[in-house]
Amino acid sequence: MTDVLRLKPGPHRILEGAPWAYRGELYHSNLQPGSIVALEESNGRFVGRGFFNPASLIAFRLLTRNVHDVIDDHWFQARVGEAARLRFELLKDREAYRVVNSEADQLPGLIVDKYGPMLVMEILSLGLQPFRQAIVEALVDIYHPQGIYERGDVAVRAKEGLPREDQLLYGTLVSPVTIQENGVSLTIDVAGGQKTGHFLDQYANRKRTAELAGGKEVFDAFCHTGAFGLLCAKYGAKHVIGIDIDERAIARAQENARQNGLEQHMEFVTANAFDWLRQESDKGPQYDLGILDPPAFTKSKDAVAGALRGYKEINLRGMKLIKPGGILVTSSCSYHISETQFIEVIRDAAKDAKRPVKILEIRGQGLDHPMAPGLPESRYLKCLVCAVD
Amino acid sequence: MTDVLRLKPGPHRILEGAPWAYRGELYHSNLQPGSIVALEESNGRFVGRGFFNPASLIAFRLLTRNVHDVIDDHWFQARVGEAARLRFELLKDREAYRVVNSEADQLPGLIVDKYGPMLVMEILSLGLQPFRQAIVEALVDIYHPQGIYERGDVAVRAKEGLPREDQLLYGTLVSPVTIQENGVSLTIDVAGGQKTGHFLDQYANRKRTAELAGGKEVFDAFCHTGAFGLLCAKYGAKHVIGIDIDERAIARAQENARQNGLEQHMEFVTANAFDWLRQESDKGPQYDLGILDPPAFTKSKDAVAGALRGYKEINLRGMKLIKPGGILVTSSCSYHISETQFIEVIRDAAKDAKRPVKILEIRGQGLDHPMAPGLPESRYLKCLVCAVD
Repeated sequence: MTDVLRLKPGPHRILEGAPWAYRGELYHSNLQPGSIVALEESNGRFVGRGFFNPASLIAFRLLTRNVHDVIDDHWFQARVGEAARLRFELLKDREAYRVVNSEADQLPGLIVDKYGPMLVMEILSLGLQPFRQAIVEALVDIYHPQGIYERGDVAVRAKEGLPREDQLLYGTLVSPVTIQENGVSLTIDVAGGQKTGHFLDQYANRKRTAELAGGKEVFDAFCHTGAFGLLCAKYGAKHVIGIDIDERAIARAQENARQNGLEQHMEFVTANAFDWLRQESDKGPQYDLGILDPPAFTKSKDAVAGALRGYKEINLRGMKLIKPGGILVTSSCSYHISETQFIEVIRDAAKDAKRPVKILEIRGQGLDHPMAPGLPESRYLKCLVCAVD
Repeated sequence: MTDVLRLKPGPHRILEGAPWAYRGELYHSNLQPGSIVALEESNGRFVGRGFFNPASLIAFRLLTRNVHDVIDDHWFQARVGEAARLRFELLKDREAYRVVNSEADQLPGLIVDKYGPMLVMEILSLGLQPFRQAIVEALVDIYHPQGIYERGDVAVRAKEGLPREDQLLYGTLVSPVTIQENGVSLTIDVAGGQKTGHFLDQYANRKRTAELAGGKEVFDAFCHTGAFGLLCAKYGAKHVIGIDIDERAIARAQENARQNGLEQHMEFVTANAFDWLRQESDKGPQYDLGILDPPAFTKSKDAVAGALRGYKEINLRGMKLIKPGGILVTSSCSYHISETQFIEVIRDAAKDAKRPVKILEIRGQGLDHPMAPGLPESRYLKCLVCAVD
């Protein structure tokens, strides 16, 4: 028999479809941290099976609502298989994508990213640990990778009681690794001291932006290793300037530009993008296409007001830089900022910039980053394509 | 001097970026219905220029916040020109699209759709009437259409004090007209007693769905004249069944299938899609790909609860029809139902259907239907691509 965990009486998000329950919603339990348990309502009705970890604020993470599911190595391998099958069908032969996206793929706390021959895994819930080897075996069977590398240096692991260390789980480590993305070669550090990473979630948005870039004068603020701008240059942009405060990211971006023979169309500036936008926008509209892809301005609910001010500031400046009739592609990856709030930011920025703005497209993360319908937070990326008149 | 209209003291959505003000927000005025006025705050500060119509609940419609803009024939022609330029840049040589989308294109109450050689215009605000000829001239200059047809048979025109009648404004009437959409010929009645129309706003969503249809068993509920299913069949679906209650729409759909040589892969049923979904889903999962594209279930705020029940019912049934690992493409075009509410419907339907669902993409209306950032209602179409396990 599985161990049983019980919900306190009252309404609970998990009963409406959310994939977890907080510690405070559960009766105290002495069950083993990290074990698989059955969750029941206070009246004894079965809710689902999942991970228990009293050390975490999210003490129960749902795996299945099906009472007949047996949670063992095979169950996890089947979920990994289904996640991979879906990507094969949807993405065909893309080289780099997210293979497993946590709750949305019914594998809470598991992230697997594919960068060509390398798979990079993150385990963010204690309960996954006993099944790690089975998951690795499934991934080897499906992808035949050169290596599977675990990134353990993530703060949230400490909360779960997991050690913070990176390790190679299979094969050999290939890092940096070079991947192809719509005709551009991108070199990515998947491990080591220079973790610059690559944002797989913006893949389709980069392509969409590049399709609009032909013959244009482009700025790419918060450019990181340059992927947005590189694609624009590849698709025929006249000139792209990329701005980022991270020197190592800029060095990698410059290398990426050279490696693609695009350096004569690209320029990179190591600077605080806020300052650059302010100074540059004082000179008036000079660009046909602008990209704003900042890091999350807030990781907590308390900081939302400040984050909204930050988003408004950069969007206001960004709009002022765009020539009439140009395009601004603006993103927010803060999951505490809703799509509605982000659109209000654009509305306010447009009003203050005195520029009529049309939102042409409301885009999100790519389909390799599915969303769990019961977890609004899993829709974190908003990307708006705006015409600025 | 322009006539001046004044806002009452207090907060107003128009001061936060919305493109209109309600009658109750304005001091009484004897200005001419349909005239161009300047709106001021109660303290005399300029807000913008726009249409005044005391007969309508929306008594002021904003044209511009720029105090220097002179609102004359040239101003309207410039807005039409900008709207068309944006479409040329974004859509290249597409044959059918929305040319002008009301507030989002700074032309409140004006809708212009292009169906190959025909332009179809709707005028939904009294203030546009004096500029109709100038707008027609601009459209003729840009598109050289065979005809421009005005659809006046729209209920909202009565509220504005406009006559309800269709008329040809330019050239000759071509109806039905045949257009090409991604390799499929579609015949569309743009005028006359058989107005079945064509939903331009789903263009990109049809293409996306068709890309997923190769080799699949597909249902297309609320299929209207069959465009979703036709594209799926063209892209290699094994078999498509289309269901709609409107006999004339089904007849047109069958004709469209024949005209494209796709009739051996397509079947159409004249039936209430609710009933069909209920009966068919009782037989269990039989389809690889399902499409739900119902008409708006509510056109008023009061009917939202009933509409949500309707959406839940069809999505629950739709999910039950999908084989494990299949795809459901589900839309809502009710602007009173927010994206958040629609995702909650999917969450609830998935829970009751006992089917794990991943939302792969959150899509909206096409970019020829831009959204005004200050008018959340102008984001009315939600289209979710879901994997159903």
